[in-house]
Amino acid sequence: MAAEGAEMTEETDFMIDTNVGQKIANVESAGDGKEMRAVVLSGFGGLNKLRVTKKPMPEPEHGEVKIRVKACGLNFLDVMVRQGTIENPPKPPLVPGFECSGIVESLGENTTGFEIGDRVMAFVNYSAWAEVVCTPAEFVYKLPEEMTFTEAAGFALNFVVAYMMLFEVANLREGMSVLVHSAGGSVGQAVAQLCSTLPNVTVFGVASCFKHTSIKDSVTHLFDRNVDYVQEVKKISPEGVDVVLDCLCGENTGKSLSLLKPLGTYILYGASNMVTGETKSFFSFAKSWWQVEKVNPIKLYEDNKVMAGFSLLNLLFKQGRHTLVKSVMDKLVCLYNQKKIKPVVDSLWALEEVKEAMQRIHDRGNVGKLILDVEKSPTPLMASDSTETSEAGEEEEEPEGDNDSKERMPFIH
Amino acid sequence: MAAEGAEMTEETDFMIDTNVGQKIANVESAGDGKEMRAVVLSGFGGLNKLRVTKKPMPEPEHGEVKIRVKACGLNFLDVMVRQGTIENPPKPPLVPGFECSGIVESLGENTTGFEIGDRVMAFVNYSAWAEVVCTPAEFVYKLPEEMTFTEAAGFALNFVVAYMMLFEVANLREGMSVLVHSAGGSVGQAVAQLCSTLPNVTVFGVASCFKHTSIKDSVTHLFDRNVDYVQEVKKISPEGVDVVLDCLCGENTGKSLSLLKPLGTYILYGASNMVTGETKSFFSFAKSWWQVEKVNPIKLYEDNKVMAGFSLLNLLFKQGRHTLVKSVMDKLVCLYNQKKIKPVVDSLWALEEVKEAMQRIHDRGNVGKLILDVEKSPTPLMASDSTETSEAGEEEEEPEGDNDSKERMPFIH
Repeated sequence: MAAEGAEMTEETDFMIDTNVGQKIANVESAGDGKEMRAVVLSGFGGLNKLRVTKKPMPEPEHGEVKIRVKACGLNFLDVMVRQGTIENPPKPPLVPGFECSGIVESLGENTTGFEIGDRVMAFVNYSAWAEVVCTPAEFVYKLPEEMTFTEAAGFALNFVVAYMMLFEVANLREGMSVLVHSAGGSVGQAVAQLCSTLPNVTVFGVASCFKHTSIKDSVTHLFDRNVDYVQEVKKISPEGVDVVLDCLCGENTGKSLSLLKPLGTYILYGASNMVTGETKSFFSFAKSWWQVEKVNPIKLYEDNKVMAGFSLLNLLFKQGRHTLVKSVMDKLVCLYNQKKIKPVVDSLWALEEVKEAMQRIHDRGNVGKLILDVEKSPTPLMASDSTETSEAGEEEEEPEGDNDSKERMPFIH
Repeated sequence: MAAEGAEMTEETDFMIDTNVGQKIANVESAGDGKEMRAVVLSGFGGLNKLRVTKKPMPEPEHGEVKIRVKACGLNFLDVMVRQGTIENPPKPPLVPGFECSGIVESLGENTTGFEIGDRVMAFVNYSAWAEVVCTPAEFVYKLPEEMTFTEAAGFALNFVVAYMMLFEVANLREGMSVLVHSAGGSVGQAVAQLCSTLPNVTVFGVASCFKHTSIKDSVTHLFDRNVDYVQEVKKISPEGVDVVLDCLCGENTGKSLSLLKPLGTYILYGASNMVTGETKSFFSFAKSWWQVEKVNPIKLYEDNKVMAGFSLLNLLFKQGRHTLVKSVMDKLVCLYNQKKIKPVVDSLWALEEVKEAMQRIHDRGNVGKLILDVEKSPTPLMASDSTETSEAGEEEEEPEGDNDSKERMPFIH
């Protein structure tokens, strides 16, 4: 990742460009030389901190793989990165993104296990949202033959997270029950599919009402986000559930612990409740932090309960567990080849459409994964979008509210 | 358990009786009729709250098994019961004890799975320390042919607790590492044996120095209770350990969590630090409660750690998990038959020696299990013990201090 922190050479905002085809062509010819297109976050804040920019193309260092990127995964965590709502954020400007798929273009010194031309998916410690990515070979995995680049960008993070929570942390077995908040999200959908690989696992899902039609077949029982899920679960299973997977945090921790059966496991794997508006809100951050119930282990002793946290990125990039993750990925590829799991893709977006894509995941509008398709041309803006010209260079926060007039129509998968 | 809460018919303190043989004979003849010997706790407090008494013999109710008891297990939890240092203690007078072994004497209505004469071990929700015990059939398990009654009384609780923590909660696998506080205790010894059933599991044990000679072969690394075990473990394994089993509580929770590897599991299964003197100390109780680190799940998320509590008695008697425990017991009996595990017995005591036995476990003097052998005659007191006569009827707390002059010599196994 030699280019990280390098100066931006040219900043272009494709949001204001109606002549998209020509611009793309320019950038691609630059990419063949020493430059590439990348999404750059200029500082923590709202959507206007994101730009597509030309950046020097990175070259692979010792042990790294250089990947010509085809597609990137967009996760809720990327919204938190944009807002700066994460632990020890790196200093902007930075290229966001933690996962991508593409073709191996070259190898660093002493890099083994890959050949030029290999179709791969990879985890990246930032910098995935670019035409070219360099990342250590430990974080790169060959694609199964039938997997498309789009699928691959929606596969790695969600399925590894879901698998490790269910089988490494919670020890899920036949006959157990699982409650997943955000059942319509990409991890939620991966959880539902992995649960169905075991006999007789009951999945309780919570999701916004408008998603119910599309995801109702993936879970056993589906509740609306606005109902009291504790009561609803208890009506069906008075004893509670064996596993709760929580990416919300805040008051859900206490509620979820109370829903656990004896020997049940609560796993916190995200804190999306910390995000409310478009920019970081200290109020919602503090509310989430304080609402979360600090737990006395003596209480866990009396109740026979397990409380856990899971962060794949920390596991990979801070805690060096790439060998374990590789073994999990091998199992997941087997399940994919057996057609037991398959990523659910919500929509594809050009790099230049990253703001709309982010708004969609921020609003929890997605069912499954949002993908940035590096080779996709942005959908042309409608006439009313010219109003955006005046905002392009501004660094102030954009006001929150309806942005309908600015929205492009994404390609919904 | 029909006799629970029934009035005591005759209170005798065998501590003051030098003519033990005759007394035993009297009691046994009573036992053949409608009475039996039992250890009774007259109220929460010091050792002087314990007496051996004749009580009405219980008869088995619907679904219960009546057991002629041969041996009972004594656990640290019994010291906490005596002091009243437990959650929701039952109202004394009560017969303590949670496990025993013996012979099935009769069956309640609709009790299936057992025949009169079966050799069994059993969990009891109090009332185990008696000549006869009635308990629901769900908590009774047949003995493997080669297991003695003494072994059985040291088998059930320790091995089920150790097995469930290692394999149900922590998901122990080949190559992992385990730290066990109280490695010399009966659960600690069971943990060490169960770890050795998997290849390449490293066991770090903490125990008082004087136990090291007898237990050093059971663990990989042994530390003295007085050294800083966090530093010692990190010298050997800078990354920490995969599992910490803690029966102490208090400040050990925070220390243990800090010692965990990513994805590691901390399990609290006791709170023996709450016991300091002979009677309940509100100071040490409060100190343990407040010293224990309440844990924010967001911290577990960042560190990829698991915090759990395990209480077998709550699991059995409050949370109805007897079917799961039965399946664990089946696996343990297999391991016993394969000679892979075998309870370590510290010493055998007559019911009348319960005070000395309790003092020994309170002082952490034991290596392995203390057993109350119901058929054992108390070791005759020495001449100086006649001083105890004056204390026999007192209800006040006995002063703490050296009781050497009153000690009998137990049979050390």
